[in-house]
Amino acid sequence: MTDHREDAPEAYLDLLDQYERVTALGGVQGTLSWDQQVMMPEGGNPARSKQLSVASGLSHDLLTDDVVGDSLDALADADLTDDQRAVVREVERQYVRAERVPRDLVEEISQTSSEALQAWEEARENDDFETFAPYLETLVDLKREYAAHIDDERDPYAVLFDEYEPYIDLETAERVLERLREELVPLIDAVQASEADLAAPFADGTYDPDAQEAFSRDVLDALGYDWDRGRLDTSTHPFTVGNQFDSRITTRFGEDEPLDSMMSTVHEFGHARYNLGLPREEYGTPLGEARDLTVHESQSRLWENHVGRSEAFWGRFAGDLRERFSSLDATPRDLYEAANRVYPDNLIRVEADELTYHMHIVLRFEIERDLISGDLDVSEVPAAWNEKMEEYLGVRPDTDSEGCLQDIHWSHGNFGYFPTYSLGSVLAAQLYAHAEDDIDDLDATVADGDFAPLADWLGERVHRHGCRYTTPELIEEATGEPYTADHFLDYATSKFGRLYDL
Amino acid sequence: MTDHREDAPEAYLDLLDQYERVTALGGVQGTLSWDQQVMMPEGGNPARSKQLSVASGLSHDLLTDDVVGDSLDALADADLTDDQRAVVREVERQYVRAERVPRDLVEEISQTSSEALQAWEEARENDDFETFAPYLETLVDLKREYAAHIDDERDPYAVLFDEYEPYIDLETAERVLERLREELVPLIDAVQASEADLAAPFADGTYDPDAQEAFSRDVLDALGYDWDRGRLDTSTHPFTVGNQFDSRITTRFGEDEPLDSMMSTVHEFGHARYNLGLPREEYGTPLGEARDLTVHESQSRLWENHVGRSEAFWGRFAGDLRERFSSLDATPRDLYEAANRVYPDNLIRVEADELTYHMHIVLRFEIERDLISGDLDVSEVPAAWNEKMEEYLGVRPDTDSEGCLQDIHWSHGNFGYFPTYSLGSVLAAQLYAHAEDDIDDLDATVADGDFAPLADWLGERVHRHGCRYTTPELIEEATGEPYTADHFLDYATSKFGRLYDL
Repeated sequence: MTDHREDAPEAYLDLLDQYERVTALGGVQGTLSWDQQVMMPEGGNPARSKQLSVASGLSHDLLTDDVVGDSLDALADADLTDDQRAVVREVERQYVRAERVPRDLVEEISQTSSEALQAWEEARENDDFETFAPYLETLVDLKREYAAHIDDERDPYAVLFDEYEPYIDLETAERVLERLREELVPLIDAVQASEADLAAPFADGTYDPDAQEAFSRDVLDALGYDWDRGRLDTSTHPFTVGNQFDSRITTRFGEDEPLDSMMSTVHEFGHARYNLGLPREEYGTPLGEARDLTVHESQSRLWENHVGRSEAFWGRFAGDLRERFSSLDATPRDLYEAANRVYPDNLIRVEADELTYHMHIVLRFEIERDLISGDLDVSEVPAAWNEKMEEYLGVRPDTDSEGCLQDIHWSHGNFGYFPTYSLGSVLAAQLYAHAEDDIDDLDATVADGDFAPLADWLGERVHRHGCRYTTPELIEEATGEPYTADHFLDYATSKFGRLYDL
Repeated sequence: MTDHREDAPEAYLDLLDQYERVTALGGVQGTLSWDQQVMMPEGGNPARSKQLSVASGLSHDLLTDDVVGDSLDALADADLTDDQRAVVREVERQYVRAERVPRDLVEEISQTSSEALQAWEEARENDDFETFAPYLETLVDLKREYAAHIDDERDPYAVLFDEYEPYIDLETAERVLERLREELVPLIDAVQASEADLAAPFADGTYDPDAQEAFSRDVLDALGYDWDRGRLDTSTHPFTVGNQFDSRITTRFGEDEPLDSMMSTVHEFGHARYNLGLPREEYGTPLGEARDLTVHESQSRLWENHVGRSEAFWGRFAGDLRERFSSLDATPRDLYEAANRVYPDNLIRVEADELTYHMHIVLRFEIERDLISGDLDVSEVPAAWNEKMEEYLGVRPDTDSEGCLQDIHWSHGNFGYFPTYSLGSVLAAQLYAHAEDDIDDLDATVADGDFAPLADWLGERVHRHGCRYTTPELIEEATGEPYTADHFLDYATSKFGRLYDL
């Protein structure tokens, strides 16, 4: 393949040059945000909020600069290679959205999000939704205004959803979510009715966070995390930030539930591995950028669920785990069962099992869609949350900290983000099914602790392409078939059927 | 005092608005650079270099934006208050310099500095000046070009010096450095000839870095460091970065020489205390910004030398130190002597005592001045360094790592920076002499561990003014007399005279 910069029109090189600066500023925002959540002393927020808001505004200025519009115009009828067309497609999509939104609004959203983040942290700690509510109201209003600037004839929620997943339309997303709900609810019911008694080897102990961290590092070592290009830290909400040169993971360690942090570490590894697999020579172009949230989440879910929650994985790591926690008496099978216990009465999304997880998403999706449409008022969120929890999972949170305050997303103004978690899980199953077809005894490689075949397959099929393909094209390219929930439902039915003797 | 924003001309408010963005972006660069030196994984440099260079270019764009030039024009004949005039003076000074330098050059210097930083780290580790030399050459050329853009009729080194200390001219600086050399060399000679045998309680042990860190934290607690607005981390070269909301310290812990890290921590505390004492409501204006490097260094040196190296200080902390290092058998007097031993054969500037320190500065000053003038070639730096060390201190480094590769500054392209260290020490003595006049038994407050009177005096005389006054005005305002080396030389002669029975 020839380099897309070779013999390219002048306007194309101008476009790349400007987009490289947009990318760099995006990386700056990522680092500032990582620092804010991981390192920054509490008092630093007033200055940091201002810094983030100025960076957002400048990023917007760079993307909407005349050089972008003029270059895109000049390239409209140019004879371009496939790679060049992909670059133009991705820049144009972002340009069109950005130039419809005034910079002041972008800065205001950024500034408000920074303040809201701190308010959310305090509200969550004090179980005090009231103090967070005004920030949430402002963010809902601002995001509605934002959507109207982009396209005031479309459903504003669909416009916001585009930001996280531009190539799978909201109708498809809704269809997948509905199908998950329809097929998983009876499965969850059957699991609840089952008399199978899965092992719970962690139930009675407490687990030193330092030992948990040491084990997380063991696992990351074995998975092949490149420490020269990464870090592991702790934060309230686990996340990954970065690019092909520096992709950092955070996790958190609860004394009672070490499995959460382990699975969360493996999950974030999947995100980081994707970033680190992007082509280095393409840093600053769309070809060196990860595809959007569905694909990103497919990578984290694939490692978390299909690898981390497999019996083969625990065959490899049970010994290491017992070394870190000498009081733990658990076989690989016990750990496999523990990692797959279904807890319909669990309240916390990030601690949810693979089945009930999607009900947590459906709930958030419905609430945020109604918030944006105006069908639901911010003050009604706690009640709506608790009712839906009761309806979908038969359990009701005692506090908002365990209810509608548990997630960071809305404090960032990220409405339309949640559905991509389920869409990503579904794609993970589709990818894994094809990896199993292609890799000779994939299960055995995992049991041996040889994760390279899988990482390489994902690198080849997904990572190295950056944004060369749209999401549906990438899925076709990687798996030879269109996006489908079939694999996920087959996998879930079969795995939990076996575990729960259904 | 009325708020400078009240009843201000429109152009003044426009100027403030834009300058607030410049400040925010400066804070962004500070955080990126802190992260690069403290947190970033090694592989992150290619992306980080690009990010820093884009941020530099954008900062330059903001400062040279038409709104700044137009506002300054509109304000040229306006009737302004003293505070408003100070704001205009500071913005104009930066604007005039910035708009003479093309953005491409600014970005190139930033990008080269990032790469040079990594090359320097490797060169220092491998004692390999050759691999760093090409970066240094490029930086010298770029900085010469930079100075020529600003004013091609002045000595380029004087133009560069202005960047770090705009209000004390290079002639004054040279006079002070010469006077230090003339008066300190005989003092150092007398010390060397003295038969006094100062205590060296740390000479034979090794000191656990974790215990050193714990002691540093004890000291910072006692000094009143505000942990809600700060952090302590480690880095190759100790530094402080921040603003009134978030001012972070780094230090380093050598196993053999715990006193270095203690004094370095106290030094950086002085920088951080200055930042944290700036008025919060003025964040983003010159009134909320620290004065330049001479004044900043006066704060760190005052705490390091006049507090940290005093007998009273060790009266307060000897007990804490012995608790951290149970094998240590040292009285306050021993520690005081140890903190003030003169080591003419020490090779490392940041480990130097208060007297020989200034010879390290004179050496660097002479070399960088000659590099910029073209009288010295980069390839000649190691030899020139070693010869000057021999001439001034009678000692010759065996390796460049202990010689011309020891400091980070040139890898940042910071030529003209070093002299401000000595200028700051001199100012520290002047300030401390006046604090002693004003505070009832200052020595006793330090011995009691009550550092508030001194911190408050500095806050009142220096910190709260931000850039309201020029450096000479601020010195007059704080001490009632012009900048002078008299106090420093009195202090040094008297203290070391007593210690060494001269």
